[in-house]
Amino acid sequence: MPTYTPPIADTRFVLDKVLGLDRYANLPGFGAATPDMVDAILEEGGRLCAEVFFPLNQSGDAEGCTRHDDASVTTPAGFRDAYRQLAEGGWIGLGAPEAFGGQGLPHVLSTAFEEYLISSNVAFAMYPGLTQGAMAALLAIGSDEQKALYLPKMVAGTWTGTMNLTEPHCGTDLGLIKTRAEPKGDGSFSITGTKIFISAGEHDLSQNIIHLVLAKLPGAPEGSKGISLFIVPKFPPDAEGNPGTRNAVSCGSIEEKMGIHANSTCVMNYDGATGWLLGEENKGLAAMFIMMNAARLGVGLQGLGIAETAYQNAVAYAKERRQGRALTGPAEPDKPADTLFVHPDVRRMLMEAKSSLEAARALVLWGALQVDLSHKAPEAADREAADELISLVTPVIKGYLTDLGYEIATKAQQVFGGHGYIREYGMEQYVRDARIAMIYEGTNGVQAMDLVGRKLPRHGGKAAMALFGLISADIAQAKDGPQAELAGHLEKAVGQLQAGALWLMQNGMKDPNNAGAAAYPLMTMMGIVSLGWMWLKMARAAQAALDAGEGDKAFLEAKLVTARFFAERMLPDVGALRRKLEGGAEAVMALPVEAF
Amino acid sequence: MPTYTPPIADTRFVLDKVLGLDRYANLPGFGAATPDMVDAILEEGGRLCAEVFFPLNQSGDAEGCTRHDDASVTTPAGFRDAYRQLAEGGWIGLGAPEAFGGQGLPHVLSTAFEEYLISSNVAFAMYPGLTQGAMAALLAIGSDEQKALYLPKMVAGTWTGTMNLTEPHCGTDLGLIKTRAEPKGDGSFSITGTKIFISAGEHDLSQNIIHLVLAKLPGAPEGSKGISLFIVPKFPPDAEGNPGTRNAVSCGSIEEKMGIHANSTCVMNYDGATGWLLGEENKGLAAMFIMMNAARLGVGLQGLGIAETAYQNAVAYAKERRQGRALTGPAEPDKPADTLFVHPDVRRMLMEAKSSLEAARALVLWGALQVDLSHKAPEAADREAADELISLVTPVIKGYLTDLGYEIATKAQQVFGGHGYIREYGMEQYVRDARIAMIYEGTNGVQAMDLVGRKLPRHGGKAAMALFGLISADIAQAKDGPQAELAGHLEKAVGQLQAGALWLMQNGMKDPNNAGAAAYPLMTMMGIVSLGWMWLKMARAAQAALDAGEGDKAFLEAKLVTARFFAERMLPDVGALRRKLEGGAEAVMALPVEAF
Repeated sequence: MPTYTPPIADTRFVLDKVLGLDRYANLPGFGAATPDMVDAILEEGGRLCAEVFFPLNQSGDAEGCTRHDDASVTTPAGFRDAYRQLAEGGWIGLGAPEAFGGQGLPHVLSTAFEEYLISSNVAFAMYPGLTQGAMAALLAIGSDEQKALYLPKMVAGTWTGTMNLTEPHCGTDLGLIKTRAEPKGDGSFSITGTKIFISAGEHDLSQNIIHLVLAKLPGAPEGSKGISLFIVPKFPPDAEGNPGTRNAVSCGSIEEKMGIHANSTCVMNYDGATGWLLGEENKGLAAMFIMMNAARLGVGLQGLGIAETAYQNAVAYAKERRQGRALTGPAEPDKPADTLFVHPDVRRMLMEAKSSLEAARALVLWGALQVDLSHKAPEAADREAADELISLVTPVIKGYLTDLGYEIATKAQQVFGGHGYIREYGMEQYVRDARIAMIYEGTNGVQAMDLVGRKLPRHGGKAAMALFGLISADIAQAKDGPQAELAGHLEKAVGQLQAGALWLMQNGMKDPNNAGAAAYPLMTMMGIVSLGWMWLKMARAAQAALDAGEGDKAFLEAKLVTARFFAERMLPDVGALRRKLEGGAEAVMALPVEAF
Repeated sequence: MPTYTPPIADTRFVLDKVLGLDRYANLPGFGAATPDMVDAILEEGGRLCAEVFFPLNQSGDAEGCTRHDDASVTTPAGFRDAYRQLAEGGWIGLGAPEAFGGQGLPHVLSTAFEEYLISSNVAFAMYPGLTQGAMAALLAIGSDEQKALYLPKMVAGTWTGTMNLTEPHCGTDLGLIKTRAEPKGDGSFSITGTKIFISAGEHDLSQNIIHLVLAKLPGAPEGSKGISLFIVPKFPPDAEGNPGTRNAVSCGSIEEKMGIHANSTCVMNYDGATGWLLGEENKGLAAMFIMMNAARLGVGLQGLGIAETAYQNAVAYAKERRQGRALTGPAEPDKPADTLFVHPDVRRMLMEAKSSLEAARALVLWGALQVDLSHKAPEAADREAADELISLVTPVIKGYLTDLGYEIATKAQQVFGGHGYIREYGMEQYVRDARIAMIYEGTNGVQAMDLVGRKLPRHGGKAAMALFGLISADIAQAKDGPQAELAGHLEKAVGQLQAGALWLMQNGMKDPNNAGAAAYPLMTMMGIVSLGWMWLKMARAAQAALDAGEGDKAFLEAKLVTARFFAERMLPDVGALRRKLEGGAEAVMALPVEAF
């Protein structure tokens, strides 16, 4: 049966040696993140994930959620107790401000824990995950009263949150929404409409569910400029926070899906439900993007988290399963066959997974650190620079890492041969669960368009130039040292990426479809280069530790080998993607629709 | 709800214009394949698939198969009647010899029909599909009595067949099997053992099930040289073919799988079941490969077939679903939004699918024609040349086309956004169903090893040289014509492939792990180049028809655009794969197992 072990040594390596967390001790919250505190969080959090949440992953998938005739929803057996342990342990508020009962720890640290949470049980992780998104919006644009009323309960996990955007006829194009909000005259609004695909929309884990809902006010402008955001609690609380009578919002049905069965994906019916405006009138889309950006990093983390568990199980199977003999002669002649590990093509799959996952972890934690810096760096210029960087890289983390997560889950399943296709072994669930991350919070195609249409050109391409500058500086520092070869591979790939970006700038103006057709290749190139960059950082950190005689030698040497594998086996795709990108839009767009 | 339309015009184009079926009218069976006969088969067969089998695809997936307490298995509602129509229409024996009641038509034609069958309902198609594999083995190595006893019933569909290879502890490494065959002294054997993952192992579609079972005779040599093949009928027939009493073989359980739920995947228990030797003692593995090679082409066809249906539905959805506006300005300003078709990244996914599928169809039909020629060409040298070619390309068709099928099904699902993840829309089923084709009949990693370890080096690389010769000849003929650019792209890719193969030859001898680590990239390179070659053939055929003013102009022009797309957007991967391959085995194999 599947297993999961939190990769604590890897997380520590990234936090300590690659990001150098101790350099930020002067920042608010970072002082509390002492090495002992970090250890305690990773170890105790990891234990909870491995021992409590992971054992519910397969059973939760098999059982799924159940909607009853009274529109209530029951989560799978064990979820209530597990959620209670998550909430009572203070894990939901790990990164939330102390003013609202949180622990005020750095986002980079709560992100490290969140990876383990996702790895152990992504459907379970989504319940607090959606709450995090709703809290982010409340923190950013809520009034003081709203913050005081909702946040402490959400931080404590007593109440959960949701995001209500999609309607049957509109997902990406939110300008088309039909849900209406009529002022009731007492400062509240009457919300009417139907929302679909609402994750954690109804369940039995929390006393109250705080729905954040996009709707249109009477006479609002057409399209996305006429959308407002509302707080619609399942039980509207009084001023003291005591939940009142049931609001006119209910779960109409739960969707039958490919995966994440243990998360209730609801059709939510709003029948004149009472809501309150969050933020300004007709500024709902901007508010939603606050939630979305946090959520997109979380979804990128799902790519990593699910694939990590799939990979760990593929490794375990490859160590145990015996088929055939090594091409170089029997490795264990006294056994009836050698293990799968002797076969280069099995190794190839495992190394592709390993080299991608370790770099993805570094990239996500680097991104989370930028989020921290964007809020907490003492200098405004540093805050702004960090904000630019994370804005640029967010669609790459969401889009590329979720593509990768699905690919890795598929490869890990492949290592199992026929057994990978059988439910009992658990591998096919990882594939089904990983699939949704490429779709929700904006499909990966939408991420690619966000990258080339908004993030790259913003402020004259400042963020991209900053990112390329950081990568080039690392390459320059490595070029004469023991990582020269790796730096050379990366330099070539960065050159391809820059050439691709330049082509896009020059040809996207001429014909915007050139930008559209180049978007996906460019996002993928940026993803691969970003992981390559992380490998350069990790290899240099490992080399420095080796040179200093510090740390686990075998662990550090494995980093150097894995970095080399990434350079030789993963970076070459960047060149092919550049050629595809430079093909332009013509052949993509030329066929009349009837020819399909 | 999903739809499926057999792509008859495309099939006709390949048969008539690309392969030039009329040139082979002198071959046995080809004479009967007059244009009218071909039309009748494609149209009537296509109608049956679209109207009878396809409507059972989604319901069959939802219902699955049921094993009862008496070990009998019921297929989903409608399957019995559908199977009766398939059998009574003579579709199972389309390519079988007339001597056994078949229609003796060319394999290339039965393959064209088989694509539609798979597209409509792959789980259903597997029941006759497994029978085809068993018939191939009986035809090749059965005694005259065995052929006479079994084949007519199997051709008629009254009886079905299975292949029993895998055991719990061995899949790829069949030398490890434990199933025993004890001579009973009357010419029959007593078979005892457990087989797993037996597709169509037990069901209610046919009167009898003829299991072909690998087992070991007493005192047989160790490993794969000691395996024999046995015929074990569910109801052993008397000499007149009347099924007798129930044999001691039964379905112990059916597996819960990721997909192909409507096919019963059985654990088969043999408890002293009566069997008869098929072929020679201890030559079972060679016999099994006869079945496997036929089956591998069939599985490659599954990659194409499932993806075709997924693609058709993505096209239909993209035509209908309105989200956002064209980057070049509203395409339909009077509508609330434009269709998905205006978005370059949606087009990219659809064109990747279209350009791959049309070339895959051409490749599979080209391969099927080689099978025909390997049996029926008048000259021995031509038969041998065709056999060499199809042996070489079989692992590529199986391995690359099934990888592609899964990718395309995934992309088609992506076009649906959130709706792609919901069961009701049917898209997630195609992904789940397509996944198995990468695993069974030898995982795709095993296909890659078959290619580099057996097929490429065989007879001093004769087959590969012949294939490269054919491709080069087509390039040379196209280089000064209107397809010069396409030919140039292909020539470059072929050069990369040849360089990769050369690297492999030189470095695989030095260290066999270099061959193992290069196998998968090389298989993929050969797959892409083969599709590129088919595009050159198709583009030249389309151009010739256009020049002659024959045929549907829009249809032919679409071929030229799609060929260009393939060259610009799909061929570049070949260069990246060469670089990966040339990385060699070092970084792949360097880590100690404990480092994973």
